[in-house]
Amino acid sequence: MPLFSKVLVANRGEIAVRIIRACRELGVQSVAIVSEADRDCLHAYLADETVCVGGPSAGDSYLNIQNIISAALMKGCDAIHPGFGFLSENAEFAEICDQCGLTFIGPGADSIRLLGDKARAKDTMKACGVPTIPGSDGELTDLDKARELASEIGYPVLIKAAAGGGGRGIRVVEKEEDLEDAFTAATAEAVACFGYGGVYLEKLLRGIRHIEFQIFADRFGHVVYLGERDCSLQRRRQKVLEEAPSPVMTAELRARMGEAAVKAAKAVGYHNTGTVEFLLDPDGNFYFMEMNTRIQVEHPVTEMVTSLDLVKEQIQVASGQALSFTQEDVIIRGHSIECRINAENPEQNFRPDSGTVDVLFIPGGNGVRFDSQLYQGYDLPCYYDSMIGKLIVWGRDRTEAIARMKSALSELIVNGIDTNVSFQKSIINSEFFGQGRYDTGTIERMLKGEEK
Amino acid sequence: MPLFSKVLVANRGEIAVRIIRACRELGVQSVAIVSEADRDCLHAYLADETVCVGGPSAGDSYLNIQNIISAALMKGCDAIHPGFGFLSENAEFAEICDQCGLTFIGPGADSIRLLGDKARAKDTMKACGVPTIPGSDGELTDLDKARELASEIGYPVLIKAAAGGGGRGIRVVEKEEDLEDAFTAATAEAVACFGYGGVYLEKLLRGIRHIEFQIFADRFGHVVYLGERDCSLQRRRQKVLEEAPSPVMTAELRARMGEAAVKAAKAVGYHNTGTVEFLLDPDGNFYFMEMNTRIQVEHPVTEMVTSLDLVKEQIQVASGQALSFTQEDVIIRGHSIECRINAENPEQNFRPDSGTVDVLFIPGGNGVRFDSQLYQGYDLPCYYDSMIGKLIVWGRDRTEAIARMKSALSELIVNGIDTNVSFQKSIINSEFFGQGRYDTGTIERMLKGEEK
Repeated sequence: MPLFSKVLVANRGEIAVRIIRACRELGVQSVAIVSEADRDCLHAYLADETVCVGGPSAGDSYLNIQNIISAALMKGCDAIHPGFGFLSENAEFAEICDQCGLTFIGPGADSIRLLGDKARAKDTMKACGVPTIPGSDGELTDLDKARELASEIGYPVLIKAAAGGGGRGIRVVEKEEDLEDAFTAATAEAVACFGYGGVYLEKLLRGIRHIEFQIFADRFGHVVYLGERDCSLQRRRQKVLEEAPSPVMTAELRARMGEAAVKAAKAVGYHNTGTVEFLLDPDGNFYFMEMNTRIQVEHPVTEMVTSLDLVKEQIQVASGQALSFTQEDVIIRGHSIECRINAENPEQNFRPDSGTVDVLFIPGGNGVRFDSQLYQGYDLPCYYDSMIGKLIVWGRDRTEAIARMKSALSELIVNGIDTNVSFQKSIINSEFFGQGRYDTGTIERMLKGEEK
Repeated sequence: MPLFSKVLVANRGEIAVRIIRACRELGVQSVAIVSEADRDCLHAYLADETVCVGGPSAGDSYLNIQNIISAALMKGCDAIHPGFGFLSENAEFAEICDQCGLTFIGPGADSIRLLGDKARAKDTMKACGVPTIPGSDGELTDLDKARELASEIGYPVLIKAAAGGGGRGIRVVEKEEDLEDAFTAATAEAVACFGYGGVYLEKLLRGIRHIEFQIFADRFGHVVYLGERDCSLQRRRQKVLEEAPSPVMTAELRARMGEAAVKAAKAVGYHNTGTVEFLLDPDGNFYFMEMNTRIQVEHPVTEMVTSLDLVKEQIQVASGQALSFTQEDVIIRGHSIECRINAENPEQNFRPDSGTVDVLFIPGGNGVRFDSQLYQGYDLPCYYDSMIGKLIVWGRDRTEAIARMKSALSELIVNGIDTNVSFQKSIINSEFFGQGRYDTGTIERMLKGEEK
């Protein structure tokens, strides 16, 4: 089956660079899109052709469906790779691509739509036997029902406003005698805040880890999981540092979670790559959180431990090829860690920075990879995400990977803009990371001085 | 067993950078040495401490044993890593290190001395059953004996002046009737050129490949081979591009050659890493050529396919540790290629260049590694070897590795000095390389326009 002849890369930054490199290795022409603020971007230099699709704001350019589709058609592309962020999980965009005869390199619009609706996704998973967080499957208006359910799933529980968001309308209930007050207060707060008093009840999970499984599916019914990534180290729900495998994973648990991830993908008729995100509690129970229908920032740690190329595989599978590997071919070897390098100042509440990169020194050597849009002299614009690179290492084991990451971080020089390199150093040097003993709250506690 | 506390790196350029990185990952302090021309070298920036050991010429600095030993003692080092070139195969240096209480990170002085004497090395290998190139085991003064031997080993043969060098005093003899004239002429030329008429006779091998085996030995009697590298692509006996595994290797031949390499190492009581170089003829016969008693330029291709770190292993083994792997642990996975990047102009007979690197862009991404001393703004001195970096790729198979190398070469930018990047591109794009059909004469024929 022939691959595409020309792919439009509907993104910017390091993921655009990543996709262009994958195209080049496959002998596929690439077309970059840029905003007016991105004319000197690395992805524009590396692509075979470049089209400016609009002004600096993402809405005018990287989210401008009409201009992007026009650019693809004008340049004679036969496919579009959306990367992550921007239009990558926009079902309408995937549909428009299809209507214009352009292959959207990702899953079908139906899968994107279903999985983008968190409630429908949860219902679907529950129906097919993938564990979800225990709780009321809809709204609760009756205190007695709430009490019955809470004692069934066990305390502590959360009461959440159905119409809520931003952390408002949430009550933590530690024991049964507090339920009535909390239920009443949450309902009242929901009415006050959202004009609607419906509430949900859900088990409160503590000390949880964010463990996600990369899956890959082709159009011939093959669905394979590629092991897990531990992405528990987050600040404000943004991942900071990821590793594969997870320090708490066992072969038995990996098989169970991996098979659940495959079941999740099959339940929605998924094709191409995706990530099934789970929460893992300290007792080894796991719960479906959501499924992301795109390549993810942290995909390289999976590449390092599986020796596969996920972006090339995406393109091949989208073109109609079968998966190039079976479940038996996927062998997790060694250990990989990724540090996200952001243009931000950890000393000033992680305020994003922009400006000219005066000096750039990229760490190198055995087992070190740096995926980035930076070059020396690059003028980083202020309009987009602050991520400027991903420092990735591989080691024979976790100890070697940590030593290698410490060494690589010590070499990295990005002068001219603020970066979070010192913050990443403090994480990699921490006791909790060295011991693999962390959960989704660790970074926040570290920033408060409660974790070392 | 504790590792060293501080290692002096008795080298410069990319291998010094490589060793410093290995030290840092192991938690060992590193001391760089520089010549007066190298004060702004990357290895000086990356090391924990730096000592200037002399003037720009290598004899005054990187070969200045007294100053190097003094620097090591002054800085409180307990070991010296010699890298390759310079003092790395100098048995006297290894002995002096030992006398000064400094561990020489390499084999024993006796092994270096024995293997450095090509005739003794050949005798030793022959005695222990490692195949050597058939020929007279010493000088031949008698035409009848020459005729007898030549018909025994088969034509074509070479007659070489015992005192020869630089290709002088060599005669190719295709068939028996030409032997007498050639013998007489070679003897006369030997007398005329070298003042001594002794000659050797040796089988002339055609269409041969240079296949070398990396071995590793500890002091507990473990000797392991790490598969082969194909280094047949050479210009003037200098390797240009290396790959692992060899395109002509089979599992059966690898086992036979690997076992011969282990036998060679055991025969000389070898420890630490070394390379047994063989010539492989088109019929699958292999012959010991020489054994190099140091880490080699092309060691990264072996690292890429074995996932081992050879320089860290060197340091660990030299400190008295046992090998961290057994023969069974060594699994060759995928394919790796290295292109040596030199500051030289292929259009002007590969004339070396020096000067300031105005713009540097290093290729990155999945499976791409660049080991180099370059940074943007670096002023490359004219005193040393022209190699400025090694571009290394790994792929799941040879096809992917080639595509990745083509892509990486297309990204590499080194402005301000002449490089051989275009020459490497012409090799990687050639028919002979694509088909894996090449021998030690291919590059010379390509330069004459006889190979595509």
